[in-house]
Amino acid sequence: MRRSIATVSLSGSLVEKLSAAAAAGFDGVELFETDLISCPLRPAEIKRQADDLGLTIDLYQPFRDFEAVSAELLQRNLKRAEQKFAVMAALGAPMMLACSNARAEAIDDDALAAEHLHLLAERASRHGLSIAYEALAWGTHVDDYLHAWNLVRIADHPNLGICLDSFHILTKNTDPARIREIPGEKIFFLQLADAPGFAIDTLHFSRHYRCFPGQGGFDLTAFTEHVLAAGYRGPLSLEVFNDVFRQADADRTAVDAMRSLIILGDAVRQRLPVQTSLPELPAFSQPQGFAFAEISVDAHSEKIAQDLLARMGFTHTGKHKSKRVQLWEQGSARLLLNHSHPLTTDWARGDAAISVIGVEDPNSSRSAARARELLAPQAPRAVGVDEALLPAFTMPDGTDLFFCRTCEPQNWLADFDIVSSAAGQAGLTSIDHVALSPAADHFDETLLAYQATFGLELRPIEEFADPYGLLRSRAVTSEGFNLIFNVPVIGGADPKQSGVQHIAFSCSSIFQAAETFRANGVPLLPIPQNYYDDLSSRTGLTPATIARLREYGILYDKTSAGEFYQLYPTSLSRNIFFEVVQRIDGYDGFGAPNAPVRRAMQSSPS
Amino acid sequence: MRRSIATVSLSGSLVEKLSAAAAAGFDGVELFETDLISCPLRPAEIKRQADDLGLTIDLYQPFRDFEAVSAELLQRNLKRAEQKFAVMAALGAPMMLACSNARAEAIDDDALAAEHLHLLAERASRHGLSIAYEALAWGTHVDDYLHAWNLVRIADHPNLGICLDSFHILTKNTDPARIREIPGEKIFFLQLADAPGFAIDTLHFSRHYRCFPGQGGFDLTAFTEHVLAAGYRGPLSLEVFNDVFRQADADRTAVDAMRSLIILGDAVRQRLPVQTSLPELPAFSQPQGFAFAEISVDAHSEKIAQDLLARMGFTHTGKHKSKRVQLWEQGSARLLLNHSHPLTTDWARGDAAISVIGVEDPNSSRSAARARELLAPQAPRAVGVDEALLPAFTMPDGTDLFFCRTCEPQNWLADFDIVSSAAGQAGLTSIDHVALSPAADHFDETLLAYQATFGLELRPIEEFADPYGLLRSRAVTSEGFNLIFNVPVIGGADPKQSGVQHIAFSCSSIFQAAETFRANGVPLLPIPQNYYDDLSSRTGLTPATIARLREYGILYDKTSAGEFYQLYPTSLSRNIFFEVVQRIDGYDGFGAPNAPVRRAMQSSPS
Repeated sequence: MRRSIATVSLSGSLVEKLSAAAAAGFDGVELFETDLISCPLRPAEIKRQADDLGLTIDLYQPFRDFEAVSAELLQRNLKRAEQKFAVMAALGAPMMLACSNARAEAIDDDALAAEHLHLLAERASRHGLSIAYEALAWGTHVDDYLHAWNLVRIADHPNLGICLDSFHILTKNTDPARIREIPGEKIFFLQLADAPGFAIDTLHFSRHYRCFPGQGGFDLTAFTEHVLAAGYRGPLSLEVFNDVFRQADADRTAVDAMRSLIILGDAVRQRLPVQTSLPELPAFSQPQGFAFAEISVDAHSEKIAQDLLARMGFTHTGKHKSKRVQLWEQGSARLLLNHSHPLTTDWARGDAAISVIGVEDPNSSRSAARARELLAPQAPRAVGVDEALLPAFTMPDGTDLFFCRTCEPQNWLADFDIVSSAAGQAGLTSIDHVALSPAADHFDETLLAYQATFGLELRPIEEFADPYGLLRSRAVTSEGFNLIFNVPVIGGADPKQSGVQHIAFSCSSIFQAAETFRANGVPLLPIPQNYYDDLSSRTGLTPATIARLREYGILYDKTSAGEFYQLYPTSLSRNIFFEVVQRIDGYDGFGAPNAPVRRAMQSSPS
Repeated sequence: MRRSIATVSLSGSLVEKLSAAAAAGFDGVELFETDLISCPLRPAEIKRQADDLGLTIDLYQPFRDFEAVSAELLQRNLKRAEQKFAVMAALGAPMMLACSNARAEAIDDDALAAEHLHLLAERASRHGLSIAYEALAWGTHVDDYLHAWNLVRIADHPNLGICLDSFHILTKNTDPARIREIPGEKIFFLQLADAPGFAIDTLHFSRHYRCFPGQGGFDLTAFTEHVLAAGYRGPLSLEVFNDVFRQADADRTAVDAMRSLIILGDAVRQRLPVQTSLPELPAFSQPQGFAFAEISVDAHSEKIAQDLLARMGFTHTGKHKSKRVQLWEQGSARLLLNHSHPLTTDWARGDAAISVIGVEDPNSSRSAARARELLAPQAPRAVGVDEALLPAFTMPDGTDLFFCRTCEPQNWLADFDIVSSAAGQAGLTSIDHVALSPAADHFDETLLAYQATFGLELRPIEEFADPYGLLRSRAVTSEGFNLIFNVPVIGGADPKQSGVQHIAFSCSSIFQAAETFRANGVPLLPIPQNYYDDLSSRTGLTPATIARLREYGILYDKTSAGEFYQLYPTSLSRNIFFEVVQRIDGYDGFGAPNAPVRRAMQSSPS
């Protein structure tokens, strides 16, 4: 199927928007009228630009408040339509989107509305053009797609069909399954947009918070399946009004949009019994945990990290054959300290940053093919003679993902000369999770990219208060492989609260870890006494347990699934810290209720 | 009346929050529990800090999900309460806020709820403490204040009263007038928050979008009047959860909050028949238009401005006696080009900025007293011997306001040596409006400050698309004195779309102005031909009129009140441009529908 994007979904001048859409591989665009009116190029010149870029102009939109009006207004509206038809002819745009009348003076008369739509379609047909009629969720009398379809049916003109917009349909909780009742050839156009999972006045929501499929809360797979099952074969087109996209780099947004359509298309393909022309993505493989996490360091942070890791019971076990990279191990937790990788991730502004995540991947070549289809750029990386050739891709937040099979003989570990063997003194066993911090504007894009690459479970959004602003947090997980992404809710640039990353290690006993840390002189984050007073007031923990937690500054959380303990060495740098966690029973969260306390203490002057 | 603010409304550590509240003149605070738990100071130390700052801790909050529970849970909740009472005793906090139970397992039984509240109040009374019970808008069974009051009435304990929160009451459209039925002595606490005028899921709305009174859409004057009429004499307290405030400078937010309470208090005082202890603000005076607008320039932009103004028909009429400031006049439009004022406003990042607005003020000394009461800092300004001493204040966006009486003999004009007399060649008559650009996070604060200083009318928010992002625009106006404030909807730092200011001049004939400009070689902003095609399709303008508009690049708007013409010389600098407007009949807008076209052309590479 062809893929389109509305010009309103991208930032910049019309020429910039067209270039970005073409570069990301879109086949066509919906041309938003304001973009045309604000453009110094005449319609014929715009057509030439689109032609040169290999783009079609699939839809001219929107044409508003046409139908169900007085005879006098109808004449004015027809005059307006004729002028738009002339523009469309010059543009080479075959179809015009007519939205249901949203004015107060619209007449509540289906027969009249249908008569007017017939007239509009008849006029359009004389120019070889078509009309796609769409029910706006806030249309005065026509506000759902079944009503719109009924009018199209009554109007009965070959050049008149309906346009289905997932936003208008799903935001009203209308049942999308009845789309299957509409003959596919009468579905003239399909506009796709997702939206976040909170309710809001529909018009405001529509104009500001739409997002690309997979980045919000709508079930667009089922929706699109209904439309294709009805027989629609026109383009899948993204019409997304979003405050961030309006000011983001258009080239980047277009790639983000295309990735979203590829993922959606693959999901729909798997559910559709009928033959469609949707391309197939290579299947994902389930990650088997973390092979390693790499921290880029400079001379200063390298020294601090070495000292801290040694005290935490890690052993410096390996030295990279060709690069200034150290391997540190404890249990199966592996960390690389890389002194030769520039600090270039999205958010990097400190002296240390998580630059690479090694994924234990049972089928790395298939994962690599999938990542490539998902438009992930290959990570630039110097590989020495005889060194392991790992598939490696740069994710939207700037972190590189390496697909590893550590158990194989010729694996990435062979690139390291053995320095000593691991001891595992503090009982840390593996990496439990890694928390990254994309730029606020790249949050949804980043999550979708990671989630789709490995078919991870997308957890609900959590928000918690940092002393200097609210943070939004969302995890993508699978068994033994957890990633957390944190961003400021307001994309401010306050360095006090942006860009903090961490690596959490599992342990078999939090108290053993705490005692070893104390014996080794690991500086621990102080936790307020007030926290433990509150903990004792709201939990059933015994005074003795509270006292032990208090002694080491261990944080505690409990859900119906199990218990959770958290211990924090003081931060490695302003941007990175380590965490040690112990999970009891089925606890599968990350201690979100404790985050405000932890953040307050991490940001308090020591 | 005493004034308080919830610590959750301010950013930073608890100590920073207390300092900011004290510095802004608050009498007390509501202590938010998370702020306590995250604070390394023990409760008694926090009390000492507050004492030293002259602050009382008026309320400890929130205590959640206490009432209408099973017998077993009740015991656990009482244990929790006792521990909090101990904390409150150490804090010296006399009152605890108990929110209506919001858990699914809360029992729907008013008698039981009242019995539990009685028990809680009885326990509190043994410590000399009180309970203020508040209906959360999302409480499971108790979600409006009349229901909460009924429970308090049934529970009938002297240490139990209700807390009224404007947010929870007004967001549900509950009638606040029935507050008058509650005996004043049973209203234990009053929390004030405003909220913007769009609907949204209440919980989300509550946690993110509250704002200070006068910055949103609630009628808090009437609300507060009801509460005071009922006999409440406790503190007016601001409890505002807002994403921006969480990360803004706490000292600044506290001043913004205090200003809002001062304005609210004055408005309530004017409507209350009964004697209250609310302080009285000096009355505002109606501005009589603009005395002048001053642009700070550097050597480069000064030259460009001089050339542009001369071509636009302005005359260089005066030279300041002691500073490098030029006066330019046409009609009663007066501009100052100031080469000795640093470019220091909020947003200034270019080579020119609007730095001062001179207001024609019939009672400038009274206005000055009012501005001082509204916490406006006096503008630092060197005044030479014999020069006019104008009251001058710095507004939150960094612009200085000068209060002028140009008609008086010893007015500000006398500070200028006459260079030549004005000619008024292009028929420009006065300054119609000035558009400023505060930092996005200071938008509400800035609007309220300007609005309150001169009792201006606050127009609705408008939003329009800039090619590189959405802009939010709001005007404050009175007859002949219009200010517009523009900010990016997302407070991004993209210099392409932030910080643009302009000065618009009225004229008696837009075509005369355009012809004069052309004759004088004023470079005019090109307007796309597509704009005029669209204009002809949607208006009744004759082809001849369209052709004239097209010839000069004049933009057009029409409402039921009248017509509007706009003409744009090309920008003076990246941050400033001029506009010429003509208003026909009662048109009182600013041409918002044309803004996207204008912005697109201004930001297109020329």
